[in-house]
Amino acid sequence: MTAESYKKEGERIDDLQRNGLKILQDPRRFCFGMDAVLLSGFAKVRKDERVLDLGTGTGILPLLLSAKTEGREFVGLEVQAESADMAERSVRMNGLTDRIRIVRGNVRNAEELFGPSSFDVVVSNPPYMIDHHGIQNPNDAKLIARHEVLAGLEDFIQQTARILRPKGRCYFVHRPFRLADLIVLMRQYGLEPKRMRLVYPFVDREPNMVLLEGVRNGNPRLTVEKPLIVYKAVGQYTDEIHDLYGF
Amino acid sequence: MTAESYKKEGERIDDLQRNGLKILQDPRRFCFGMDAVLLSGFAKVRKDERVLDLGTGTGILPLLLSAKTEGREFVGLEVQAESADMAERSVRMNGLTDRIRIVRGNVRNAEELFGPSSFDVVVSNPPYMIDHHGIQNPNDAKLIARHEVLAGLEDFIQQTARILRPKGRCYFVHRPFRLADLIVLMRQYGLEPKRMRLVYPFVDREPNMVLLEGVRNGNPRLTVEKPLIVYKAVGQYTDEIHDLYGF
Repeated sequence: MTAESYKKEGERIDDLQRNGLKILQDPRRFCFGMDAVLLSGFAKVRKDERVLDLGTGTGILPLLLSAKTEGREFVGLEVQAESADMAERSVRMNGLTDRIRIVRGNVRNAEELFGPSSFDVVVSNPPYMIDHHGIQNPNDAKLIARHEVLAGLEDFIQQTARILRPKGRCYFVHRPFRLADLIVLMRQYGLEPKRMRLVYPFVDREPNMVLLEGVRNGNPRLTVEKPLIVYKAVGQYTDEIHDLYGF
Repeated sequence: MTAESYKKEGERIDDLQRNGLKILQDPRRFCFGMDAVLLSGFAKVRKDERVLDLGTGTGILPLLLSAKTEGREFVGLEVQAESADMAERSVRMNGLTDRIRIVRGNVRNAEELFGPSSFDVVVSNPPYMIDHHGIQNPNDAKLIARHEVLAGLEDFIQQTARILRPKGRCYFVHRPFRLADLIVLMRQYGLEPKRMRLVYPFVDREPNMVLLEGVRNGNPRLTVEKPLIVYKAVGQYTDEIHDLYGF
């Protein structure tokens, strides 16, 4: 089958610049951003580990992690039927059905769906916005991906703590304005923050993303890494970003 | 009286490069570092506010803040008699006895000494080290300044929460490896982390200090500021550090 045959009306096929991977996206819906790419570079997955992506969207994290790591199985949990369908077709289009599985369901039900202590690693790019005051269409796909409509940050962290094995690792990307909430909730649910990196668009600007690694039942001691700077000049990526994108 | 007349044997007088300020230090004891200078630039003190420095050492923070801000009164609490004595002589040497007061006592007794809700601002450069295993001399001045011998991070934060007025502000400098502890304790005692800045020695190195502002009973939302880079090349300060030091 040709790649085109996996595509539905309105969708496009984007090249992920890594191992020939491609992904289906619909520009009318949510498209993946730099946050997912940076998280795929920050997360550490060892040989044969099992990885769960909470709120996988179009499956960008399982796709990238299957190419970048030697993990055995990558499961993407997604509540939105259309996104899950697109993710599933992307997996088939890339011939990765033996390593990636897309599951439909709410993040809140992760433990029910998969059982306690069932994964070595959890990754997640949760919705960034706290609420959805004044928003008209609660069924909107972009809204659910970006706002805490169906699951809040506490749900993501609580479920992560439940489905990770002891000493299992989790990796989150979020906005810096939620950093205190993230750290407090992680500590509260026994996911000790162990490694953090701030992403600064320019060296003289506020960061717009934070990457965090937590370890279930880990000892308290955080390593803050060197800054990740995105642009060295307007429109010019730094070398590190070039490497991460595989240009 | 000349400046020299305030000096005891073994001490030296250092120029603070700001408003003609000088400070007494004893190189055999604890000398202030860049952390205190950076904290004095990070802290915001408004006109007529009352400021407490928990663990003031030789009084570096009250001295710098009296020069940089329009605060009305600066109180430095110090448990070590010799450091408090040196701080007091520095205050007199600079003719600042109307604005700076040095009080002897343990940080753990701050509320008892000053009363609840008695300050607008608290600053502190607490000891960085968690314990003092294997250390021979528990009366050592450097040890007490650097290790949590007489008061731990939780004491500093608990006492800060008690002696700050509602909506009062606190400013801490610490090592990044304690960031999760700091944020969790601040939230626990009602000092909401509102502003944070990481200090990176070089743009491509891990940070070695973190500056944090908390607001008593503040709403959760953290602003992470642009990185503070110390050196642009080996031995060459960045412009921002030059400004902070008043060169």
